[in-house]
Amino acid sequence: MQLLHTIKELRTWRKDKGFIGFVPTMGNLHDGHLQLVKEAKKLTDYVVVSIFVNPIQFGEGEDFDSYPRTLDQDMEKLVEAGVSVVFAPEVKELYPIPQTVFIEPSTIQNELCGITRPGHFRGAATVVNKLFNIVQPNIACFGKKDYQQLFIIKEMVANLNMPVQIIGVNTGRAKDGLALSSRNGYLTDAERLQAPTLYQTLTGLQQAIKAGSNHYQNLLADAKQKLNDSGWQVEYIELRNANTLQAAKPEDKNLVILAAARLGKTRLIDNIEITL
Amino acid sequence: MQLLHTIKELRTWRKDKGFIGFVPTMGNLHDGHLQLVKEAKKLTDYVVVSIFVNPIQFGEGEDFDSYPRTLDQDMEKLVEAGVSVVFAPEVKELYPIPQTVFIEPSTIQNELCGITRPGHFRGAATVVNKLFNIVQPNIACFGKKDYQQLFIIKEMVANLNMPVQIIGVNTGRAKDGLALSSRNGYLTDAERLQAPTLYQTLTGLQQAIKAGSNHYQNLLADAKQKLNDSGWQVEYIELRNANTLQAAKPEDKNLVILAAARLGKTRLIDNIEITL
Repeated sequence: MQLLHTIKELRTWRKDKGFIGFVPTMGNLHDGHLQLVKEAKKLTDYVVVSIFVNPIQFGEGEDFDSYPRTLDQDMEKLVEAGVSVVFAPEVKELYPIPQTVFIEPSTIQNELCGITRPGHFRGAATVVNKLFNIVQPNIACFGKKDYQQLFIIKEMVANLNMPVQIIGVNTGRAKDGLALSSRNGYLTDAERLQAPTLYQTLTGLQQAIKAGSNHYQNLLADAKQKLNDSGWQVEYIELRNANTLQAAKPEDKNLVILAAARLGKTRLIDNIEITL
Repeated sequence: MQLLHTIKELRTWRKDKGFIGFVPTMGNLHDGHLQLVKEAKKLTDYVVVSIFVNPIQFGEGEDFDSYPRTLDQDMEKLVEAGVSVVFAPEVKELYPIPQTVFIEPSTIQNELCGITRPGHFRGAATVVNKLFNIVQPNIACFGKKDYQQLFIIKEMVANLNMPVQIIGVNTGRAKDGLALSSRNGYLTDAERLQAPTLYQTLTGLQQAIKAGSNHYQNLLADAKQKLNDSGWQVEYIELRNANTLQAAKPEDKNLVILAAARLGKTRLIDNIEITL
């Protein structure tokens, strides 16, 4: 496995390589990331993993500075996983001067997580666009845990005719159901014990809807209330069309419930798909 | 020479080709376009020319519907010029659904031509981004006639790390100095006779500045007044730093004067570089 820090090194390595899989990450890797790598390895000859905490997708007051950076441990895991190249550029390498040109996603960027994180998806789409242009992968794997991000990346690739196939990979979970996330490390012991109730709430809603309950707004409002009563601060919990991320209509068959909520200072997100 | 209409055909053709040059156009080709092709041929093994009148770079009330479409004549010229592939997609091929994701250029998009053509450069940058992702050229040639567009494309490629080199090619001109443009065809005979005075004004300014005149604002204001007095409606005539397109400072050595003006209903643009 090679560790490359510059665009030039990466392009030189890329030159004579065939079918490439790519997993963009912000590092601090957990089993969820490794499942993305596994999927990419299944489909391609070479896997490139990028590790880059991208400043332009963090808002003011967010955790850019404190975001965990654990390159040595990440490298060990990626050697083990059989990755070909780790691309870990400095901020100055991707942004030698302040970025002035952006990928502007559709208005879905202003909904769900976009409400409390203005500019987040613009920053995420822009860095992914840059990384795609640098790595030139044939396929790229993204976790369904960041469902809205996955949607926005797919939309970017389709709208801009990018020559890459996007694979959505199921969310990795702890045994108690908590979605794996680097931000789980921010939780206190007590919060960690409580954290799985978010996913339990989603599975409860999934069961109710599959069983035929169609008073969607009441169901969601009850769920939100219960989470708030038990110590969560729910940002949103919404039912959407899984293919368009528009508000779910009665006739929709492919649905997804998306949620974001805080436990203490830690913001967690999760979601669950429902096929009727 | 092959004429291809679909992205799929283009990608299939592209697969086993080496070094590719690309000239994106809106068709109605003149010698200015053919000089771009000539430059691309000099530098690459295969040249792709796209012909696509791009709806998303035209504003309301602009000439999208009346823009000249002359595919048969264009094809003859391109066979002659030794082009490998003409890519002429339908609007539905590039925009199967309305575009929702855009390339957002820097704020320079709102200056110069951007003042009277809001959204124009966003639309132009977005379609060029799409075409680059489809054609995957190694180099692409753009005319210096559209100086602001060339700047915005270079800025996009640099900011998004696109794997393509942008070549700016000198403006093709009629014997009387008029910059070649498809829109020259809109001119009446009388307007065509008058049209070269725009370029004559620019060369006059260039000579004055090279001779040491540094009352830039007075020079430009006088030139504007003279053009307006002789029947032009000048939109802007500005001196800028040629490398940054920012307002020229006294210490700048690489300058460009850019102008846009109407003769009757026809809007023409031109520019001239100055090295001190």
